[in-house]
Amino acid sequence: MVSRPGGRTARTRTAVAAALQEELLEVGYAGTTIERIARRAGVAKTTLYRRWGSVGQLVVDLFHEAAAVEIPVADTGSLEGDLRALARSAVTLLLHPRSRAVFDIVVGEAVHDEAARAALTDFFAGRVANAAPIVARAVARGEIPANTDAAEVIRQLGAPYYARLYITGDPIGEADADRAAAVTAMAARAGLLA
Amino acid sequence: MVSRPGGRTARTRTAVAAALQEELLEVGYAGTTIERIARRAGVAKTTLYRRWGSVGQLVVDLFHEAAAVEIPVADTGSLEGDLRALARSAVTLLLHPRSRAVFDIVVGEAVHDEAARAALTDFFAGRVANAAPIVARAVARGEIPANTDAAEVIRQLGAPYYARLYITGDPIGEADADRAAAVTAMAARAGLLA
Repeated sequence: MVSRPGGRTARTRTAVAAALQEELLEVGYAGTTIERIARRAGVAKTTLYRRWGSVGQLVVDLFHEAAAVEIPVADTGSLEGDLRALARSAVTLLLHPRSRAVFDIVVGEAVHDEAARAALTDFFAGRVANAAPIVARAVARGEIPANTDAAEVIRQLGAPYYARLYITGDPIGEADADRAAAVTAMAARAGLLA
Repeated sequence: MVSRPGGRTARTRTAVAAALQEELLEVGYAGTTIERIARRAGVAKTTLYRRWGSVGQLVVDLFHEAAAVEIPVADTGSLEGDLRALARSAVTLLLHPRSRAVFDIVVGEAVHDEAARAALTDFFAGRVANAAPIVARAVARGEIPANTDAAEVIRQLGAPYYARLYITGDPIGEADADRAAAVTAMAARAGLLA
């Protein structure tokens, strides 16, 4: 499929993505259908069926795109400060109903659907690539060992709030972001994430 | 429902649980039906429909029961040693195809089903209650601050390997259990889990 930036395909995608998020918030995943999304987006439902086939594939495809987005990472002068800023952004995103609705579906589908699993894995590979400069700067400052694994640092940072949301079912907030940053920075300094 | 230990109800449950796990491994969640479980367990399908209604509710109910099981926790003489033993048991369980199949379903359902969410939350409340003596012993030895939160310690311990499995999609193994124990023990000693 050829997609020109700002062209008709891009406009369709944007309209469909917005309609999908509104439907998910209004009627939930079980109630969301291709027909309803098409009507709300003002797009022919045959276009949606041809391109995505199902609501699940549509969610996964749009989520996949999110993996490629670069998010500016703060340069606070310390590893813990940088990780705290990153964790707070992630928690804020997960507390936002629209992004949370999409995330919930992808996590739920990923246990039995390969496309959803791949979208989630790619999303985190994107997050790691995006945040790798944080680790490189801390190494350059001599704060942490040179053989520190950036992927391990980012995984360790995110694990507590993702596990609270999707495994233990506990609430998340800024305190969880700050604690995750403190624990991860300490573990990295001690060489446990090498 | 009246259930006598060793009685007909208990035998039915055991047979149904075994049949369910075998079906999940053979044909996956999508292929598992009440009819197939009933045939394999040698139980009338009307009994299963009356008691559980659907495969999802059956999985959730059996998982709920697992929360109440007490698992002996090792007393190695150090917080890190005790946490390492606990984390290794958890990783071994998650690597076992039968328990993993059930866990996958409950995690997947929990994002949109209240009964599955409650089963998962109760499971971890059970794990915390079960492991609380580890934290109490470490406090008594003067290894960690008296105001350390046992629930926070157990959540911090489990977060990395659950997040690898269900969020980032990375493999898990003994090294992940050992790293989680080292990071959690260090964080607890520093008073970050109070």
